[in-house]
Amino acid sequence: MSIFTHTADGSVLLVGAGPGDLGLLTVKGLRALESAEVIVADRLGARSVIDQLEAERGRPLDAEIIDVGKLPGHHPVPQQRINEILVEQAKAGRRVVRLKGGDPFVFGRGGEEVAHCHAAGVDVQVVPGVTSANSVPAVAGIPLTHRGLATTYTVITGHDQLTELGGGRDHTVVVLMGIGTLAHSAMILARGARRGDCPVAIIEDGYGPDQRVTIGTLETIAFQAARRQVRSPAVVVVGEVVTLSPYANGVFETQQIPETAPATTSPVLTRNP
Amino acid sequence: MSIFTHTADGSVLLVGAGPGDLGLLTVKGLRALESAEVIVADRLGARSVIDQLEAERGRPLDAEIIDVGKLPGHHPVPQQRINEILVEQAKAGRRVVRLKGGDPFVFGRGGEEVAHCHAAGVDVQVVPGVTSANSVPAVAGIPLTHRGLATTYTVITGHDQLTELGGGRDHTVVVLMGIGTLAHSAMILARGARRGDCPVAIIEDGYGPDQRVTIGTLETIAFQAARRQVRSPAVVVVGEVVTLSPYANGVFETQQIPETAPATTSPVLTRNP
Repeated sequence: MSIFTHTADGSVLLVGAGPGDLGLLTVKGLRALESAEVIVADRLGARSVIDQLEAERGRPLDAEIIDVGKLPGHHPVPQQRINEILVEQAKAGRRVVRLKGGDPFVFGRGGEEVAHCHAAGVDVQVVPGVTSANSVPAVAGIPLTHRGLATTYTVITGHDQLTELGGGRDHTVVVLMGIGTLAHSAMILARGARRGDCPVAIIEDGYGPDQRVTIGTLETIAFQAARRQVRSPAVVVVGEVVTLSPYANGVFETQQIPETAPATTSPVLTRNP
Repeated sequence: MSIFTHTADGSVLLVGAGPGDLGLLTVKGLRALESAEVIVADRLGARSVIDQLEAERGRPLDAEIIDVGKLPGHHPVPQQRINEILVEQAKAGRRVVRLKGGDPFVFGRGGEEVAHCHAAGVDVQVVPGVTSANSVPAVAGIPLTHRGLATTYTVITGHDQLTELGGGRDHTVVVLMGIGTLAHSAMILARGARRGDCPVAIIEDGYGPDQRVTIGTLETIAFQAARRQVRSPAVVVVGEVVTLSPYANGVFETQQIPETAPATTSPVLTRNP
């Protein structure tokens, strides 16, 4: 029953919570939460998954929950202190789950937490999760790759210095935490082969109550985002695959989808179905 | 109980099976398999997850399982026929799960299956999964991004024409299905800022019994792979993050990991813990 075993005493399990929907937590992540003695949770995604799980069970989890309140661009508990909490709790002999939004090894600073635990002699393992990079675009019916439209994708954040990326519209770009720097990123991405009329979608609050999709082009997306008062958390997708979204229906010229017939006309994934 | 609801009669649920470990299937994917009347499964990853689930339950799933036997580079059942099977089964009023390795919208041709179902008037929804792109490198302790080492990652396949990618070693590249074209890809990636001594890891059979990690550089990796008779399925990771792997210990000069102390010395994730 390998997947249902407890974390060993005095150890840390870094668990990816996925994009914030309990259904997209992994089976192993679920069991880890149910058997944890301490859960160290981020605000975004992670905390919401705990709330949904407790509602589903009809009773609280047994674990003590330490909310380190990590939001994008805003860290009430510094990373170094989070690292220390993990080690302190494990050294007290407790089964610790570090619950992180998305995947721990994709923009999650999980590598630092692993290194810190190893340096302190604490057993640590990683349970990968569903990253927002692919799961949030799916809400809008957008695959990251699609035969004839895109064969590659790159994931960046709006926080980092964006340099010119190679490739054209067949090279999908996903921007995480990119709302604050949207106009600048769009301008950089429009250089080279993508050009200003390259399709863009913004998906706000992917699996939450404020889910919303905004469609534009690299030239218009900052204007559209301002007009609709788009807010974080949101995922930005850039490339020809955006034309596959039912939300893009009528916005762009109809794309011929190879080997299959017409474009979609209804959302691929209804919210919390 | 949103996550435990059945798929509606006469509909298709495209479910990401993850990298082949039942523990990395999503909760929603698990419930979908348990309530399905028909499961249309790929060979790689998907079929293995069904086997593990049936072993865990101690009895077979209720669903009829249609094995479309899709292996990388080898499609016994053509994609067009898979599309037709989905529509036929749904139109017969059955709850159909299309179980695909990894994530349906990451190199999974899920977009084509969605478009085909929509065109035929069949209700279809997508349940994202854990893609091999981030979960298999985690087996070797390699995060795709890491403060001070990498802020961006790109995912490609060895099947596609690889053109020069921008960026240096701080721009991680993940190559899926890349063993057959390894020497060529390494040569292309060594152009520009990555150079020939850029670290590379190959992780074979990420969550299976033949899991193995091979370390090299862009210049040496094809030789190493030949020497160790590396086989598909395997994931190739290129970039400075490879130095964080315990398997790379001693191969490269020690990297300073910002804000934390020494490099790791033991595997991050033991197999099937």
